[in-house]
Amino acid sequence: MLGSRFARQLVRVAALRDSRCRSLVVRTALTGHIIPDGRFYSSKIQPRLTSEAYPYVKRDPSFKKLTNEDVSFFKSVLSESEVLEASEAEDLAFYNEDWMRKYKGQSRIVLKPKSVEKISKIVKYCNEHRLALVPQGGNTGLVGGSVPVFDEIILSVSNLNQIRSFDAVSGILKCDAGVILENADNFLAEHGYIFPLDLGAKGSCHVGGVVATNAGGLRLLRYGSLHGSVLGLEAVLPNGEILNSMDALRKDNTGYDLKQLFIGSEGTIGIITGVSIMTPTRPKAFNVSFLAVDSYESVQKVFVKAKKDLSEILSAFEFMDCHSQALTKKHLPDAPYPFEDDYPFYVLIETSGANKEHDDAKLESFLESAMEEELVVDGVVAQDETELKNLWQWREMIPESSQAEGGVYKYDVSLPLQDLYSLVEAANVKLEEAGLVGDAPKPVIKAVGYGHVGDGNLHLNVAVREYSKEVEKALEPFVYEFVSSKHGSISAEHGLGFQKKNYVGYSKNKEEIKLMKDLKQHYDPNGILNPYKYI
Amino acid sequence: MLGSRFARQLVRVAALRDSRCRSLVVRTALTGHIIPDGRFYSSKIQPRLTSEAYPYVKRDPSFKKLTNEDVSFFKSVLSESEVLEASEAEDLAFYNEDWMRKYKGQSRIVLKPKSVEKISKIVKYCNEHRLALVPQGGNTGLVGGSVPVFDEIILSVSNLNQIRSFDAVSGILKCDAGVILENADNFLAEHGYIFPLDLGAKGSCHVGGVVATNAGGLRLLRYGSLHGSVLGLEAVLPNGEILNSMDALRKDNTGYDLKQLFIGSEGTIGIITGVSIMTPTRPKAFNVSFLAVDSYESVQKVFVKAKKDLSEILSAFEFMDCHSQALTKKHLPDAPYPFEDDYPFYVLIETSGANKEHDDAKLESFLESAMEEELVVDGVVAQDETELKNLWQWREMIPESSQAEGGVYKYDVSLPLQDLYSLVEAANVKLEEAGLVGDAPKPVIKAVGYGHVGDGNLHLNVAVREYSKEVEKALEPFVYEFVSSKHGSISAEHGLGFQKKNYVGYSKNKEEIKLMKDLKQHYDPNGILNPYKYI
Repeated sequence: MLGSRFARQLVRVAALRDSRCRSLVVRTALTGHIIPDGRFYSSKIQPRLTSEAYPYVKRDPSFKKLTNEDVSFFKSVLSESEVLEASEAEDLAFYNEDWMRKYKGQSRIVLKPKSVEKISKIVKYCNEHRLALVPQGGNTGLVGGSVPVFDEIILSVSNLNQIRSFDAVSGILKCDAGVILENADNFLAEHGYIFPLDLGAKGSCHVGGVVATNAGGLRLLRYGSLHGSVLGLEAVLPNGEILNSMDALRKDNTGYDLKQLFIGSEGTIGIITGVSIMTPTRPKAFNVSFLAVDSYESVQKVFVKAKKDLSEILSAFEFMDCHSQALTKKHLPDAPYPFEDDYPFYVLIETSGANKEHDDAKLESFLESAMEEELVVDGVVAQDETELKNLWQWREMIPESSQAEGGVYKYDVSLPLQDLYSLVEAANVKLEEAGLVGDAPKPVIKAVGYGHVGDGNLHLNVAVREYSKEVEKALEPFVYEFVSSKHGSISAEHGLGFQKKNYVGYSKNKEEIKLMKDLKQHYDPNGILNPYKYI
Repeated sequence: MLGSRFARQLVRVAALRDSRCRSLVVRTALTGHIIPDGRFYSSKIQPRLTSEAYPYVKRDPSFKKLTNEDVSFFKSVLSESEVLEASEAEDLAFYNEDWMRKYKGQSRIVLKPKSVEKISKIVKYCNEHRLALVPQGGNTGLVGGSVPVFDEIILSVSNLNQIRSFDAVSGILKCDAGVILENADNFLAEHGYIFPLDLGAKGSCHVGGVVATNAGGLRLLRYGSLHGSVLGLEAVLPNGEILNSMDALRKDNTGYDLKQLFIGSEGTIGIITGVSIMTPTRPKAFNVSFLAVDSYESVQKVFVKAKKDLSEILSAFEFMDCHSQALTKKHLPDAPYPFEDDYPFYVLIETSGANKEHDDAKLESFLESAMEEELVVDGVVAQDETELKNLWQWREMIPESSQAEGGVYKYDVSLPLQDLYSLVEAANVKLEEAGLVGDAPKPVIKAVGYGHVGDGNLHLNVAVREYSKEVEKALEPFVYEFVSSKHGSISAEHGLGFQKKNYVGYSKNKEEIKLMKDLKQHYDPNGILNPYKYI
């Protein structure tokens, strides 16, 4: 019976021969509610000022308040189009609010310099005058790291948006920090290369921003972390000095690898202005298979088998629990669901490679043997690009589905693989025991789990009808304590930002935190870069 | 004609189905001359004391000289077997001399602690008493970084040699720093995984040592740099504190990535004692093809084509010039050379993947089309494991062949791909112009070039009949200036050590050097760790 489903479905996947091999993943993360100025937000909620929502966070009195003299200085360095001041016509909400609309700063000025030298002059001035700065890229972060908390000056790199050079032999790209990720990837596609990182926010986020936050995303399983692929950086240090380490060499063992410090530093010790990165050859063929699995133990076994059998062509291994799919089906009642029955777990496998026939054969053989071994109980393989997109949406629409009935508490954690799903189970038990789960008027619909199994990265979403202190109390610090007890990370890919600044102790020990604080103090003794955040 | 050669040779490669898929690369780097204590050296030359060969380098008088009280302290922390003192029976040459026998220190004591806690106590004591220390792993470095310059205490991690844990689902290995690379790889082979780095010195070098020197080696093209694959480290800091960052998470964005600082820091800001690393699935099939190419421009075109056509299965792309092959043929007169004629350049391509038939088909199609496009003028494909090893030896034996008639000046540089070979041409012109090249008694036989084209890494070997000040003067600083003018790196993978400490300015700018010196000063204010080296 199960085999027959595959036998019916498992014909060779129809050709997806888009000559530029654009990424075939359905992009949903940046959909949402359009507000009058054309921006997309994830929520209609009007955000409260961060200073009001978190009254215990106080403005650092050592920071000077912006004066007319400061503005005059900025205008002496920058042209009119590079300075935005708050006015009746311009509330700067676009720059003060994060995409989730959870945080809102009160900056009165946004600087958008068109050169690195101008950034250098501004930062030097701000450091000498104790003016706090928030570096901002595409402002698509999920932890409030890219917006001011109080009146910090916003320094946007969006006017640094040029490709600097590309070597079509080595695949090394040099570009400004403000190049939009999708633009960089489209440019590379024309030359047969691919950006080694992909994100839902690719249409808005910047190359510099993904490096500053060490973003993970969908291609990490295949292409590894940015610590491996970034070859060089240009950054403006807190004292205004320009660090030019824009190396375009794959190997360079001449001293401490300084650029590594800036990858994932979230704008706290320097403003990244340029990136040199190694890009891989663009795959010619993509396949997607969506599988039903009857236990989390089997999910792990399917993963090991996929690594072994699909090996170098495996490019995504995502898992989803039945609860996440139940919410998504409800949210997308008309979308064609691949299965008639429900199963405890689902796995989405993507392959990409240089030869379609070979990839099809490997996938077919892997699936046949996974069924024979009874690791997989049902499954489908996309037969054309539409089916491929349809299958991806059951993974990609989970975030939106989770908050469709009110709100969602989101946790992005790393856990050892064997413990990955136990957090979701434990969260549901905890919420059940507190009597918070059930039909309305109970606040919680369900805690659902999904994520990048291949990277040990779980997204725990607690879907709620409304935000409530009771739910929050049941979840925190419980989730962080659970993650800590399993030696996991409380932030796998989203970073610390404002949201998790105070929780780093659940993932890092005292010695590590001491060294981090010491590093921040060493490079930014006045603390002007992205204050109130990170560490 | 050319096609027929391939048609004759290009039968499917015979099965190499070694169930453990051991690495098939011929190991030559650690062969050489056996001295009485059983150690292999590359040369019979008795090294001079570094202090005599480099009289301008002076012992730092701020370092205390070892006293009986110090030795008593060490003996109070360590057992008898963990302390080696110089005596009539024990000259400590094994620890004082590097493998190349170019450098020789005068240490009177070697400490080999069996626990991290003992290392911590020793380093703390040394820091408080201003006793300088040289951390030592397998002592296989090529720049004199792992041996004392004067009387520094040698701290060997060779007694920290246990695998700590391995997760066969995620492929994450945790081990002590002193585990020999080959032992780690053999352990992984048993579980179907592979160490993401391979070196000629694998039988001697340590996992901690390759991380401390950010070694590159033969698998970098496929698996990327250690900055991407190392997930966590344990290190003893210069003040004796133990930094435990032995994370086993593929994703962790909770603060500055401190471990990155230690990767490639050559023991100057901490002693690595433990490594957590992501390991990939072991390939099931290997292929090797050896090609003749008529220009360096074609070498680059073949590389671009190989990346495109072989894509995810390409695991090595090495090039060699005709001069390097002429030396090697002379050195190995009885070895079966694959070609009857001579060609200007040669390329060795290795593929590795999960499916032998697919890999063979990809390679065959690539080679056919490369010939049709006249990029490749002749070539062979290994048909069994013996042939595969034979083909690799024409690449792997170059270092030995280069010094067979006397000595060799070695340069390990990174250059932009289009400039890679021009250094060899320029070096030959320079040496010719100086009247130094020719038959005996001219000192220089030839400057030859080869290396990891895939990584932009050139090895320039100047084969000489004898070492001479004239040759040295013709080559230095010429080679460094050339590399600098092309924005290359004067050390692609060997590091700085003692040899290149004073040349870092050719690859790094003033701002970078200032930041590096500042980092060293910040973490090791007394300068006790690996002095006289690096930066």
